[in-house]
Amino acid sequence: MSQQTPRSDVIIRDAYWSRYRDLIREVVLPYQWDALNDAVADAEPSYAIQNFKIAAGLMEGEFGGFVFQDSDVAKWLEAVAYCLKNYPDAGLERKADEAIDLIAKAQQGDGYLNTYFTIKEPGRRWTNLLECHELYCAGHMIEAGVAYYEATGKRKLLDVVCRLADHIDSVFGTEEGKIRGYDGHQEIELALIKLYKATGEEKYLRLSKYFIDERGRRPHFFIQEWEKRGRTYHFPGHGTPNLEYNQSHVPVREQKTAVGHAVRAVYMYSAMADLALLTHDEELAASCRTLWDDITKKQMYITGGIGSTSHGEAFTFEYDLPNDTVYAETCASIGLIFFAQRMLRLEAKAKYADVMERALYNTVSASMSLDGKHYFYVNPLEVWPDACRQNPGKRHVKPVRQKWFGCSCCPPNVARLLSSLEQYIYTCSGDTIYTHLFIGSDAVFPMEEGNVALVMRSGLPWNGQVRITVHPEHEQESFCLALRVPEWCCGKAALHVNGQPIDYDIRDGYALIRRRWAKGDTIEWEIDMPVLMMQARPEIRADAGKVALQRGPLVYCFEEADNGAPLSSITLLENAHWTLRDEPELLNGIVAIEGDGWMESAEDWDDRPYRPYADNGRPVRVKAVPYNVWGNRGVGEMSVWMRCGRK
Amino acid sequence: MSQQTPRSDVIIRDAYWSRYRDLIREVVLPYQWDALNDAVADAEPSYAIQNFKIAAGLMEGEFGGFVFQDSDVAKWLEAVAYCLKNYPDAGLERKADEAIDLIAKAQQGDGYLNTYFTIKEPGRRWTNLLECHELYCAGHMIEAGVAYYEATGKRKLLDVVCRLADHIDSVFGTEEGKIRGYDGHQEIELALIKLYKATGEEKYLRLSKYFIDERGRRPHFFIQEWEKRGRTYHFPGHGTPNLEYNQSHVPVREQKTAVGHAVRAVYMYSAMADLALLTHDEELAASCRTLWDDITKKQMYITGGIGSTSHGEAFTFEYDLPNDTVYAETCASIGLIFFAQRMLRLEAKAKYADVMERALYNTVSASMSLDGKHYFYVNPLEVWPDACRQNPGKRHVKPVRQKWFGCSCCPPNVARLLSSLEQYIYTCSGDTIYTHLFIGSDAVFPMEEGNVALVMRSGLPWNGQVRITVHPEHEQESFCLALRVPEWCCGKAALHVNGQPIDYDIRDGYALIRRRWAKGDTIEWEIDMPVLMMQARPEIRADAGKVALQRGPLVYCFEEADNGAPLSSITLLENAHWTLRDEPELLNGIVAIEGDGWMESAEDWDDRPYRPYADNGRPVRVKAVPYNVWGNRGVGEMSVWMRCGRK
Repeated sequence: MSQQTPRSDVIIRDAYWSRYRDLIREVVLPYQWDALNDAVADAEPSYAIQNFKIAAGLMEGEFGGFVFQDSDVAKWLEAVAYCLKNYPDAGLERKADEAIDLIAKAQQGDGYLNTYFTIKEPGRRWTNLLECHELYCAGHMIEAGVAYYEATGKRKLLDVVCRLADHIDSVFGTEEGKIRGYDGHQEIELALIKLYKATGEEKYLRLSKYFIDERGRRPHFFIQEWEKRGRTYHFPGHGTPNLEYNQSHVPVREQKTAVGHAVRAVYMYSAMADLALLTHDEELAASCRTLWDDITKKQMYITGGIGSTSHGEAFTFEYDLPNDTVYAETCASIGLIFFAQRMLRLEAKAKYADVMERALYNTVSASMSLDGKHYFYVNPLEVWPDACRQNPGKRHVKPVRQKWFGCSCCPPNVARLLSSLEQYIYTCSGDTIYTHLFIGSDAVFPMEEGNVALVMRSGLPWNGQVRITVHPEHEQESFCLALRVPEWCCGKAALHVNGQPIDYDIRDGYALIRRRWAKGDTIEWEIDMPVLMMQARPEIRADAGKVALQRGPLVYCFEEADNGAPLSSITLLENAHWTLRDEPELLNGIVAIEGDGWMESAEDWDDRPYRPYADNGRPVRVKAVPYNVWGNRGVGEMSVWMRCGRK
Repeated sequence: MSQQTPRSDVIIRDAYWSRYRDLIREVVLPYQWDALNDAVADAEPSYAIQNFKIAAGLMEGEFGGFVFQDSDVAKWLEAVAYCLKNYPDAGLERKADEAIDLIAKAQQGDGYLNTYFTIKEPGRRWTNLLECHELYCAGHMIEAGVAYYEATGKRKLLDVVCRLADHIDSVFGTEEGKIRGYDGHQEIELALIKLYKATGEEKYLRLSKYFIDERGRRPHFFIQEWEKRGRTYHFPGHGTPNLEYNQSHVPVREQKTAVGHAVRAVYMYSAMADLALLTHDEELAASCRTLWDDITKKQMYITGGIGSTSHGEAFTFEYDLPNDTVYAETCASIGLIFFAQRMLRLEAKAKYADVMERALYNTVSASMSLDGKHYFYVNPLEVWPDACRQNPGKRHVKPVRQKWFGCSCCPPNVARLLSSLEQYIYTCSGDTIYTHLFIGSDAVFPMEEGNVALVMRSGLPWNGQVRITVHPEHEQESFCLALRVPEWCCGKAALHVNGQPIDYDIRDGYALIRRRWAKGDTIEWEIDMPVLMMQARPEIRADAGKVALQRGPLVYCFEEADNGAPLSSITLLENAHWTLRDEPELLNGIVAIEGDGWMESAEDWDDRPYRPYADNGRPVRVKAVPYNVWGNRGVGEMSVWMRCGRK
């Protein structure tokens, strides 16, 4: 089993991603701060900061928003921390310190921290773990505390969350007198591992392991808790708690398919992979592999979205991937990236990075508007805006991004992911540095023979030219550089070292370059980036007879703005010749794909809904744009999958 | 405006339909009687008869089932009445008389009749018209009373419902002291018209007109009622009542599109068409035409199903006709047939009969199993059984017919429609006898110059050979026979009279044969019945790139049993040659359609969900069976619409 990544120093220098990261710092985080302070006009109120003020005794009032509202502040703080690490910003840091002061004041004497229960139900702490997100909120606060400490060296929030974690440790466990329970929404498990790593305190690792090991055992905790509570629910509900919903139906090691709420699932799997690595738990690792394969081979959209139904924001079953009634929550794809990152630490296999890249460049990037102030919660692959408004089965699908949400887990989650993107590019294992994502960056790795600096520059996602310059601390240092051979290049990637073409071996999807390195050695990695007409396997009924365009990591889509409507009247020609078009002015600068299609016309129809078949279409030029920028030109139809055929 | 159909005497003699009607009489009605008496093992209980016993004081107990449970007994009685009219059956009549005695005993002194309120909330009569179906149940009981009287001459139930209607007349109206309200589920309007026709009492016509005219006026009755009730709901609900749901959002004459609960809508439109005819209300007739066109041109499935969403069992909006998340309730298509029948009385236009036939031969017939003991409530056009179980958005779609339903409106509705099918075949207007449906029958019409007997024999739905023999009471009687030119013959129908080919004029979709008739004159009407590959207009996105097979009135479908799965991996060839195959042993005897297709294979796939496009299908023979017999061979996939293309 691989070793954990040594703490490396990675700074992103990338034309494509810098725009996103600048946007996060300059627009998104200030905007979200306003949102958390209920200062965005016409947006759904958050109440999150106000709740902390009330809990801290600084103002009077009622708790507002959902029971898990605290977590939005935590995720925002975590994102701020990542930004501050890269770009000192006194204004942002002041806001963050202000929030942290507030949080510290809201913490109770015994370490407990949760504004909902503190304000509204002080006597009912830990009585409804099933629904009330106390451990979930704690987990996010712990992640924030660790990140803020690591970014700024300031311990205040870290101390708060250590007291909180210590309190939780005193409440939960198998020992007599403790609650032998766990969280309704997994999150604290992965957070405690971060706290363990930051502090070196083994008890946090043990507590995380306890939560994972206890989950799903019989008698079922959530049933007992519900009985004890008098069978009441916080959210309207009835009947026995649905244990599959939060993956507590069987012990995690017995889980073979991804079920239930998708975000809960992938947050938990991430912690499982962490624990598998840290505790050398091969059984847990095997479960992670099984669940990974189930998700990514049977329950994942081509955009890296997961969760096929809005009912419970959940997985359904294998190959059920409807494009229009889809859920594909932003947070779920973020969690899938977390899971991929942990699996890569566990074992460097390109399949994890392929999925990580797919989710990052497509669903996660698509979830935020170009202006950084509008967000998707649900990320559909097919949108008919009228149906979103008028067919209740599609009401969860929004044809345009929203300013904020009553349940606004996704926007700050995107912020924290994109502002910590450097954590996902590389891992090290033994003498090998793995490059999983081709994102321009300056990195330093502490290798056995000395530090190694890598300077990577990348043309992705618009071209496949990657150049890496190696700067070992000592001349002739020996180590292995492993470059991912992305799935989308179909095995075609050319390698030059110092201008000389060289052959390479591939292991687990990585091209291995093992040699003694001189300072300034330069690797050219030319990854082929053809336009791919992708098809789905026949069992995925929703995509039957259709193709999706993909080029490099980007999945493309067709929008009404470019192609008219209904999009369903267009057939892409099976033998279409696809042309790339640089569009520097369009959608902040994209490469569009153009080709030949056929469009049925309604012109010669009378008012009948049905008539005998007559193919009376006409040839049309069609144009696709990256999925991740869809919906930035007003309301219109969009489709990733398009019918494909001969004419 | 046309005249109402004179009361004609029509007896069905038809190979195809006799099987259904025998089944209704011999199996369905006895079975449903058992169901109403909770004597069907493993079926959802009805409680309906038990409720009447309790209300009648014959037993102790609690009310069971839905608030509208009485209506199932009423519809069953109505169906029994139609059967008894054609086939005396002492056993069945005894059961019916027994039920009627019970109903009479359950009627209150003032004429009120409703077991829910009598048993459970005696003090709260007429306080929740929005939800509690009192007038709906009354309407069904009135229909039963009229039918039973007309079939048997027995007045007991007619007297009961007259007293009930008189009571309702005393409670509702614009006069001071009356409730100025109307029903949450329309039904009584059309029932009162039947009662008016049966009794000649104008007050019933006036009361029906009152309910129609009052509906949708401001201030909104249902809002006022809800406020007055303290904003409580019988069914879990919240917020202001949704007025579009029951078509009370605006006065009926201002309604331009079909909205809300589909059954409520078409029951109401039927009454509107009745009233338009009886009261010469051209404005109401115009509304009916507008609503008819909206439904049948923009919101109807090719199977004659209506209602695109399970949320509120409702219409959505134009061209939104998803095949898999469909509702298409059986009762809604029955109501559409009612509406068509009334429109044909108002004005004989073939478009009404085309739709009536479509709904009858497809959705309505499909709703019952071949054994007569299993029923569909929802009639999908595409079924993936695993998804019905595991994707909550499709949970309302059942892949197999059910024994009974907690809300079991559909099964007795099918029974009453099929047992009164003779009422839908002909109308008369002036000197013209219109043949709308080609169902073998012996009929007598009282025409101006004397009675005219018609003997029609029909090969439908398996062939288009129709023969009609005319027997005027007097030689050389002059009248016009109008034969519908069905939409599906594409204008190809050959007419012979006494063996001589003759040309004919077409008006409003009917071939007109106006002459002086001799006794025994014989008309041969050979309607072309090609296999049609039907396509949907491009705006119907769910059917894009697909075709449905139709031959004569029958829409066909593809089943897993014949074609394997997934059905979505099959493409029908655009230039396929379709062959008819007589299958006397299959599904009670059908004509199947066979042709050429292409099937994608999963065989050469590894475990990837997506890959670059490769057309690696193989030619296959495909086989379609009539939609109305689908799902009689176990659980499997089914699809009406199939992808169509070139290979």
